[in-house]
Amino acid sequence: MEKNITSQTLLRLPMYFNYLMSLSSERKKGNISATAIAEALGLNDVQVRKDLASVSSGGRPKVGYAASELISDIGKFLGFENHDRVVVAGMGNFGRAMLEYNGFEAYGFDIVCGFDCNEKRVGSSINGKPVRHIDELESFCTENDIRIGIITVPETAAQEVCDRMAESGIRFILNFAAVHLNAPKGVTVHNENISLTLAMLARCNAN
Amino acid sequence: MEKNITSQTLLRLPMYFNYLMSLSSERKKGNISATAIAEALGLNDVQVRKDLASVSSGGRPKVGYAASELISDIGKFLGFENHDRVVVAGMGNFGRAMLEYNGFEAYGFDIVCGFDCNEKRVGSSINGKPVRHIDELESFCTENDIRIGIITVPETAAQEVCDRMAESGIRFILNFAAVHLNAPKGVTVHNENISLTLAMLARCNAN
Repeated sequence: MEKNITSQTLLRLPMYFNYLMSLSSERKKGNISATAIAEALGLNDVQVRKDLASVSSGGRPKVGYAASELISDIGKFLGFENHDRVVVAGMGNFGRAMLEYNGFEAYGFDIVCGFDCNEKRVGSSINGKPVRHIDELESFCTENDIRIGIITVPETAAQEVCDRMAESGIRFILNFAAVHLNAPKGVTVHNENISLTLAMLARCNAN
Repeated sequence: MEKNITSQTLLRLPMYFNYLMSLSSERKKGNISATAIAEALGLNDVQVRKDLASVSSGGRPKVGYAASELISDIGKFLGFENHDRVVVAGMGNFGRAMLEYNGFEAYGFDIVCGFDCNEKRVGSSINGKPVRHIDELESFCTENDIRIGIITVPETAAQEVCDRMAESGIRFILNFAAVHLNAPKGVTVHNENISLTLAMLARCNAN
């Protein structure tokens, strides 16, 4: 295995991981070749072979990789075998979808708690995860050493929640509110803009 | 205004648009300088000035741009003043959040209809948008000339819905199901992977 991975390889590794994770459980038990992965993803198979060899030593000629081993090797390389605990602020449809979604686990994330200011939602549980009052955000995050937060509150409340998360020790914030958030020092915010993704998809490919 | 825009400028334009759209309605009525935008987004102000000049002729020295005019100019350039109708398949929490979300309009997208196979959901309306049975997908999309679809169905149903959308004349699909979809010929699929976004955010910045 090589130690020096190019940034281009680093960008492709999650694609392989994602593709392999999407296989049926039966196919995950079998072998898969670099060629098959290349075909499924529309990539050059020489490139795929090289990328995979840089993170896994499990490839065998004419057999390929044990799919589960390859998933594990790529996952380890990308840190997906961590167990990072994540909180979600805002239990509207979007926030509830985050708590219900089980796909985070494969990437090493455990959504541990939701927060809301609506008393009707506080005290309930979604997909086995508790919903607490937003005023408990700071104490919960400090006590549980939470470093990652997802914001799904309305736009008007997003910056305040962002600031409170930062004060609670959270260092990485994924923001779904359609408003640009200013990250306090030491905190990285990714502003996810679904409208923009849709615009890039439909407009930049439309020729 | 220049006709030749570099791909780097093209990548930054949506950032400017997004930032301007996130301003309060009062600030949108006033002027804004390239320097202020550059500072807010952490970019080089010479670069921002150049980018903006390439799509808007409204900039004046020491005054800047009328914010609303600049929004309109960037929006026109990026095609955000279109009115593209969009359908959403899958009315779980994620799909309902899509119908409730009003931020799409600013980007020229009208979510016109949701689809589901659950009889309890069919016939209802969310945020004024009707929910129809998934079996009406083809006829609705054909009759209304729909070209854009969002998939928020469970993973096991996503490929079938993708195929049905393609057969209905949809050319662009934004997929939120955590499974890699194979796009039929002539159709562009963007597989949105929130776990991966979170992983890139929390792992690639963590040093």
